Amino acid sequence: MTNKKKLFKQITIIGLGLIGSSLALSMKKSKISSKTVGYSRSSKTRNTSKRLNLVDKVSNKLEESVRGSDLIIICTPLSSYSNIIKKIIPHISKGTIISDVGSAKEKTINEIIPLLSNDDIFIPAHPIAGTEKSGPSAGFAELFDDRWCIITPLKNNKKSHINKVKNLWKSLGSDVEVMSPQRHDRVMAITSHLPHLIAYNIVSTAADLENVTKSDIIKYSASGFRDFTRIASSDPTMWRDIFLNNKEAVLEMISRFTEDLTALQKSIRWEDGKSLHKLFSKTRKVRDKIISAGQDTVDADFGRSKKR
Amino acid sequence: MTNKKKLFKQITIIGLGLIGSSLALSMKKSKISSKTVGYSRSSKTRNTSKRLNLVDKVSNKLEESVRGSDLIIICTPLSSYSNIIKKIIPHISKGTIISDVGSAKEKTINEIIPLLSNDDIFIPAHPIAGTEKSGPSAGFAELFDDRWCIITPLKNNKKSHINKVKNLWKSLGSDVEVMSPQRHDRVMAITSHLPHLIAYNIVSTAADLENVTKSDIIKYSASGFRDFTRIASSDPTMWRDIFLNNKEAVLEMISRFTEDLTALQKSIRWEDGKSLHKLFSKTRKVRDKIISAGQDTVDADFGRSKKR
Repeated sequence: MTNKKKLFKQITIIGLGLIGSSLALSMKKSKISSKTVGYSRSSKTRNTSKRLNLVDKVSNKLEESVRGSDLIIICTPLSSYSNIIKKIIPHISKGTIISDVGSAKEKTINEIIPLLSNDDIFIPAHPIAGTEKSGPSAGFAELFDDRWCIITPLKNNKKSHINKVKNLWKSLGSDVEVMSPQRHDRVMAITSHLPHLIAYNIVSTAADLENVTKSDIIKYSASGFRDFTRIASSDPTMWRDIFLNNKEAVLEMISRFTEDLTALQKSIRWEDGKSLHKLFSKTRKVRDKIISAGQDTVDADFGRSKKR
Repeated sequence: MTNKKKLFKQITIIGLGLIGSSLALSMKKSKISSKTVGYSRSSKTRNTSKRLNLVDKVSNKLEESVRGSDLIIICTPLSSYSNIIKKIIPHISKGTIISDVGSAKEKTINEIIPLLSNDDIFIPAHPIAGTEKSGPSAGFAELFDDRWCIITPLKNNKKSHINKVKNLWKSLGSDVEVMSPQRHDRVMAITSHLPHLIAYNIVSTAADLENVTKSDIIKYSASGFRDFTRIASSDPTMWRDIFLNNKEAVLEMISRFTEDLTALQKSIRWEDGKSLHKLFSKTRKVRDKIISAGQDTVDADFGRSKKR
């Protein structure tokens, strides 16, 4: 343990799923706090946390877990926020910062603000990181390395508080971006929420067809379908909450998507090869942009393509 | 060079794109023929073929390329089949087998049969293999290793001919499955064609939004969108032809998909969290089946998830 100044005295992680457990491991590695405390309502998760030594102390009592902490990070599904805030507010010390890792911002913030004693203490954050796996044993310390973390400050947030949360994520290896909750929700609606919804939907459509083509869907899944099943195996509770909390932006993206799909459907029905070719050429250029922006590598899928 | 009996005396590969060039390299490695000849109408492709030593001889004349071959494999987009068949039929020897690697079967077969001198010579095949890359330099010898190849025989195909094509693909490392063209097209419509169409569509929807959220779509593409761009960068001509040649099955799958998406949209609009959770739990089980069937590995995406 080095003697360099700790960013925080004690950090509480509420919820030890994929993100919470990765945070715990990453914080331990980067030594940004003297002590970490975890909260989980599930005894199974608490036992796993002890076995994997995720935090210095794990508790099943919210009030106990936050006592003495100068940073509290909520890592539970969005639908649990209000209850958690209500329970912890009476037990936090002056100067304590509350943050989160939630994937939808505006609605959550509007629900939480009235419950806060002082609305400068909540600094919303969202690390753009994750896998399709969930639970405390899915976490790993490198999850946030070289990933973006978006901070969506509230009007009354103190600059010093925002900077502390920024430094936290930088210490964990992330690049930090600051934007409004509204812009965050719109960007995520198209880059993350719609893709997940579409993946869930196509896998469900195929699953309903399974009796028709028996095990063929599983057998030949490598020809495209398989990539969607990975995304569609993400945590159901987390994703239910995301869609309920970013409803307007997601509904707008669904409308745009369906409009475009209907046009594509018409091109296929009328055998309009020219329109199809034009669209398929346009999308190819988007991929090139992503590769030149360093957001993926040309051979990222190489090992997978070879698998049948 | 071993002295073991060659499966074929001379093989002609018509079209040296990703599949054609991979076939050439794989055939060279497995030594199943004494000589391979390639055809390409593009001088650039022919030059690349010479540079990479893909085939023993490369030609820009169809009639010349097929002369003396006992196996001809068409590896060009589906829309080129009729022209190619018309041109090569007068120049092939007795006993020559014509096969292909096309991703849609029934319509193509119906178009080709009237053009054949004898309809027992065409043995349709479809290796379920590929990457999103195209062109002669994208090929690699291991592309077909442990992948499925589906053969969809015609009524009059001789068993000995079917077996020769089966043995070809087994020699290249593939597992062979035999089914009707109709069943093939239906299975591919859901496992491959619809996923590709959906990927093309979502990337197009996002591209049109780009002015709204500027470079954010590229910047945050790792949160789900990126996986779709990879699929949506597949060859435009090849995919145009697939949709035009498997129209009915694809239109049926689009209808089912849209029906399901509309129901999901309604669940989001009316905040029906229970229905969302149920559907997201169902799709998770499909993923488990794919993993237990050995069609993907749990950590297949691990390296990619860490990339931002």
